[in-house]
Amino acid sequence: MIIVMQAGATEDQITQVRAELTQCGFDVHESGGPGKTLIVAVGGKNVDGRDFESLNGVGRVLQISSPYKLASRLINPEGTRVRVKNVEIGGAEIILMAGPCAVENQAQVETIARYVAQNGAKILRGGAFKPRTSPYSFQGLCEQGLKFLQRAAEQNGLLVVSEVMDASHIPMFLRYVDILQVGARNMQNFTLLKELGRVNKPVLLKRGPAASIEEFLLSAEYVLSGGNKQVILCERGIKTFETYMRNTLDISAIPALKQLSHLPVIADPSHGTGKRDSIVPMARAAIAAGADGLLIEVHHDPDSALCDGAQSLPPGHLFGLMKQLKTIASSIGRTIAQPVESATAAD
Amino acid sequence: MIIVMQAGATEDQITQVRAELTQCGFDVHESGGPGKTLIVAVGGKNVDGRDFESLNGVGRVLQISSPYKLASRLINPEGTRVRVKNVEIGGAEIILMAGPCAVENQAQVETIARYVAQNGAKILRGGAFKPRTSPYSFQGLCEQGLKFLQRAAEQNGLLVVSEVMDASHIPMFLRYVDILQVGARNMQNFTLLKELGRVNKPVLLKRGPAASIEEFLLSAEYVLSGGNKQVILCERGIKTFETYMRNTLDISAIPALKQLSHLPVIADPSHGTGKRDSIVPMARAAIAAGADGLLIEVHHDPDSALCDGAQSLPPGHLFGLMKQLKTIASSIGRTIAQPVESATAAD
Amino acid sequence: MIIVMQAGATEDQITQVRAELTQCGFDVHESGGPGKTLIVAVGGKNVDGRDFESLNGVGRVLQISSPYKLASRLINPEGTRVRVKNVEIGGAEIILMAGPCAVENQAQVETIARYVAQNGAKILRGGAFKPRTSPYSFQGLCEQGLKFLQRAAEQNGLLVVSEVMDASHIPMFLRYVDILQVGARNMQNFTLLKELGRVNKPVLLKRGPAASIEEFLLSAEYVLSGGNKQVILCERGIKTFETYMRNTLDISAIPALKQLSHLPVIADPSHGTGKRDSIVPMARAAIAAGADGLLIEVHHDPDSALCDGAQSLPPGHLFGLMKQLKTIASSIGRTIAQPVESATAAD
Amino acid sequence: MIIVMQAGATEDQITQVRAELTQCGFDVHESGGPGKTLIVAVGGKNVDGRDFESLNGVGRVLQISSPYKLASRLINPEGTRVRVKNVEIGGAEIILMAGPCAVENQAQVETIARYVAQNGAKILRGGAFKPRTSPYSFQGLCEQGLKFLQRAAEQNGLLVVSEVMDASHIPMFLRYVDILQVGARNMQNFTLLKELGRVNKPVLLKRGPAASIEEFLLSAEYVLSGGNKQVILCERGIKTFETYMRNTLDISAIPALKQLSHLPVIADPSHGTGKRDSIVPMARAAIAAGADGLLIEVHHDPDSALCDGAQSLPPGHLFGLMKQLKTIASSIGRTIAQPVESATAAD
Repeated sequence: MIIVMQAGATEDQITQVRAELTQCGFDVHESGGPGKTLIVAVGGKNVDGRDFESLNGVGRVLQISSPYKLASRLINPEGTRVRVKNVEIGGAEIILMAGPCAVENQAQVETIARYVAQNGAKILRGGAFKPRTSPYSFQGLCEQGLKFLQRAAEQNGLLVVSEVMDASHIPMFLRYVDILQVGARNMQNFTLLKELGRVNKPVLLKRGPAASIEEFLLSAEYVLSGGNKQVILCERGIKTFETYMRNTLDISAIPALKQLSHLPVIADPSHGTGKRDSIVPMARAAIAAGADGLLIEVHHDPDSALCDGAQSLPPGHLFGLMKQLKTIASSIGRTIAQPVESATAAD
Repeated sequence: MIIVMQAGATEDQITQVRAELTQCGFDVHESGGPGKTLIVAVGGKNVDGRDFESLNGVGRVLQISSPYKLASRLINPEGTRVRVKNVEIGGAEIILMAGPCAVENQAQVETIARYVAQNGAKILRGGAFKPRTSPYSFQGLCEQGLKFLQRAAEQNGLLVVSEVMDASHIPMFLRYVDILQVGARNMQNFTLLKELGRVNKPVLLKRGPAASIEEFLLSAEYVLSGGNKQVILCERGIKTFETYMRNTLDISAIPALKQLSHLPVIADPSHGTGKRDSIVPMARAAIAAGADGLLIEVHHDPDSALCDGAQSLPPGHLFGLMKQLKTIASSIGRTIAQPVESATAAD
Repeated sequence: MIIVMQAGATEDQITQVRAELTQCGFDVHESGGPGKTLIVAVGGKNVDGRDFESLNGVGRVLQISSPYKLASRLINPEGTRVRVKNVEIGGAEIILMAGPCAVENQAQVETIARYVAQNGAKILRGGAFKPRTSPYSFQGLCEQGLKFLQRAAEQNGLLVVSEVMDASHIPMFLRYVDILQVGARNMQNFTLLKELGRVNKPVLLKRGPAASIEEFLLSAEYVLSGGNKQVILCERGIKTFETYMRNTLDISAIPALKQLSHLPVIADPSHGTGKRDSIVPMARAAIAAGADGLLIEVHHDPDSALCDGAQSLPPGHLFGLMKQLKTIASSIGRTIAQPVESATAAD
Repeated sequence: MIIVMQAGATEDQITQVRAELTQCGFDVHESGGPGKTLIVAVGGKNVDGRDFESLNGVGRVLQISSPYKLASRLINPEGTRVRVKNVEIGGAEIILMAGPCAVENQAQVETIARYVAQNGAKILRGGAFKPRTSPYSFQGLCEQGLKFLQRAAEQNGLLVVSEVMDASHIPMFLRYVDILQVGARNMQNFTLLKELGRVNKPVLLKRGPAASIEEFLLSAEYVLSGGNKQVILCERGIKTFETYMRNTLDISAIPALKQLSHLPVIADPSHGTGKRDSIVPMARAAIAAGADGLLIEVHHDPDSALCDGAQSLPPGHLFGLMKQLKTIASSIGRTIAQPVESATAAD
């Protein structure tokens, strides 16, 4: 941390800043030229540098090292592989997680589960508790939805990921799902994150629509610092002035996160765009940029989907996408499971 | 709702869209010219128009009426006044809510409570549960903090507002606070909002840093539709490309919210800027733009504050601000309580 | 400037960075702890710190001092007053610049000029060359429009400000206007800015919709470093995710610019909001936040305006606004010219 | 265009709106239910719908058809191929444009030209006139730089693209370059765009950092409506709240632009990220998303580059990238020229 004192800072003020830093365990060095004092603090506790901005005489506080520690690539330069049963996320194989936006009924989720399994997915996604912007939108089947998901996944050799909206639901989720998803709107629901830090199953953490990369990694740090080391990061689009897409999928965050952190990074091109025509090209782009997996909404009959049908991939498109992804993956030395021969017939 | 069909939409597709709309209770009219079909839907259920985007042949969906109903100005053109004991928010009198960012100890909160009461505040604010970006930052005194707040408020004839971070904490909060605050990061914590809809105390709802005005009002709608009609909206800054301030306080949202909704609107210039020097001018701007109140962080010794000292108003500044606000309020026919004679001596 | 070397930077790399800095005239100091080298450079030429990011072994470059010099408050802590004939911008008196969005014909501009003069405006604004997003929108009356403006201003004792879109038009503008306006879209038209640096009339520089405060001041620096010291800054709204307004008027930029720079700062609530209902509250907010003046679009018959009628203040509203602004100005020790007795009759 | 009248709009107001629309050549239909009047206007002139927002009684104006016509995909559903000598942009072959950020001297540009030609580039890029945020940064070699570029290109069988900053420079540029580039900061320099509409050489138009997709296509429309049909669109990053990258390269704009417009679309991952480590993954992502070409900064010695060295690809990286791009291109049925056998030796 570097503290740039104001032009007219007094000796007393400088002394006080040094004292506060020393108290936090920092080694303190002074630098700068005439009328410009810099206090360089090395080591010390994990502190939020902004807390020092309020000291008298302080001009600016510049943080040199990242405020997250356990999420940093320095912890594990090889990169972390999150293992769930027979699936590994963060290795050479790119993992597809796919399924409906919302679980609607048993038949629907079973049809889609069979379809995505035949096309190479390893993990079934589906919303049972749905965070909806409007209170008048469909809010999900709740526990019944989780049961449908679990059964459909078992029948097709898939794992289950689903969004948990509240810390009080965690015990219920642990009975039905393999990976607990934190939605974008809950990325800074710290009560939820802290509870997930005590859980023995992986957490798929989505980036909030206004979260900087640093804030995103600090939310991962909440889970990691609680003791749960199995966190998967998911880029799903940020809010920008551009409104043509529902969000702007920040593809550049993928290589950035891979460089800054050891955690696996996947992308969600469905929520990231909100437009069916954009899912396939953005899925290709995410893999080309280095993503470890994809989270894609698929619906066998998107026109009658109860929610977000517009951003679901219709039957038949997934097969072609997986073929393209195999080639793209090979360009960077990676692999991805392919559809079974009869998959196209499933349409 | 207007549904613009794609150029080549078939008769069958148009018929299906009409059928779906009729099923949702809409009166359906067809319009448009050659090769351009518009389906105009009036009345009907509260639906999310985007759900219709997935129907075959649909080009775009344009929503005419606002998706929120209970939050709309049309419900109560006079404007709602939220009454809490002897304080009314949304009337001619502008209300100051002030206090420390975080409750640190009993002496601190009592000193500040006395100070803000002498300067015209009606409500004491203070964080007992603190949502912090980093898990390594001070997280608050929890229930003990609420007790300190309540005692300090009682001693000084103030009401209490404090942030509740999780639905499970609501019963505890109801014992200590007069207004339950929902923080910006929890604006779309729908589990929390739904629970607050069943509570018999007012809710102060902060705008999320990436929330559009419509999304903000839809979050208010969650509380209102649960039965709790006492919602106060709070603008506290949005995320933009500009990083000089921690957030960009969206002053223009104040008149917009007053026009679109009947709910009282207040502003938080402390979090909205993150810079001490900006609090006073932005507080003046918010009142000039029509805000019904202010939420301001005040600290008697900001240099040693455990959190966010940089955005707290130091002693003495509040007195001058209140004098200025009295004049500004008078320019638009409003009033604001003034410091007692001896207030300056409190510094 | 502080250069943070990468963790594994070699002695050779550190030596090269020091050499480059010395060559640019910096005094160089080394700091940091084990495995963490910081190079602190003081003094030196005006350089763009990012140019040093490409040197081998460099991790980050942190600029301590502002990259603008002539625009900095340090140059003139008292604040600069731009004087044009009998008008002074940046003094205690708040200055109103008002007029039509586009000059349409002689009668229109004369009617509006008389109206704004009666209501306290000192400067007549009006577009003769119009930068329009679409090539199919009205593009302005060009030189004829400037002539209309000049005549209408003279008849009413007003000065003229109008937007110059291209460096080649400057000589023509110098014949007709008192202040040359640079539009938001041209804020980084450096050819234009350099030419305006050689001009002997004030420049009103609008902030670009994606320009940071630093970029804005660097554009002012282009004009100042060319020798023209008379620059007026104008906040007119930035692009954000919020689309309810055409732009988000960044009121917080007003006190920030006043603190960082000695140049006068005005606000344009018409373009900043694009909504007629928001002009009056946002004009009040700008003055309350410390703006030195306002640039407001006024039209005597906004419903038939050829461009941007939606953001023009209709007759009668200006009178009421000026009365409110007088009171607000007094709260911070400032003044503003008031409407003449008969002004309301002008409606 | 659909005009939604306000709830209380009078018959007179509706009549006036209809009259204005009819005067602009629209076929007008009325629709809506009780107390909700919609006026649907089909056909008519190219108008900016916002101009109708100011009419009395108008609530909102919704534009159905795109405001750009000549840039729309409807004009040429096959897609436009821009041909320059032996190079075609927009066909099956992906085109690489590469070269230094700024032309520094003859030796530098010749070294880089040879290097990029050997690695498969068809077009040499290089800045002779540099738009720099700070007036104190290197501003380019001007005409001398264009001469260096032209000579280096000829020696290596390349075409030349370079940025023109002002309309007055166009005649000079026509002597030296094959494609005239409009920089992001000049995307709405309408004087420049209009002049380029009269030129007989292709224009490479970069998206402004705050330009929506619609605004971008309207700027292309300025050139197209002037008669110049050879426009190449270039995505180069937008301003968002995320500051880790200099800009956020909006990969999703690539498929969106391809769908909305017939014009070729390329991407600039150098300016789009500002970080050397991100160029390669983002170049791959852009091609995977469907870009017709890339504009990449390459420098044989980036550590001593006079500008933007941090965002230049160092020698050796281009060779590997081109190999990866060949595979990615094949996944979507496209090709890209490959490095010559001896290219790696050029490092």
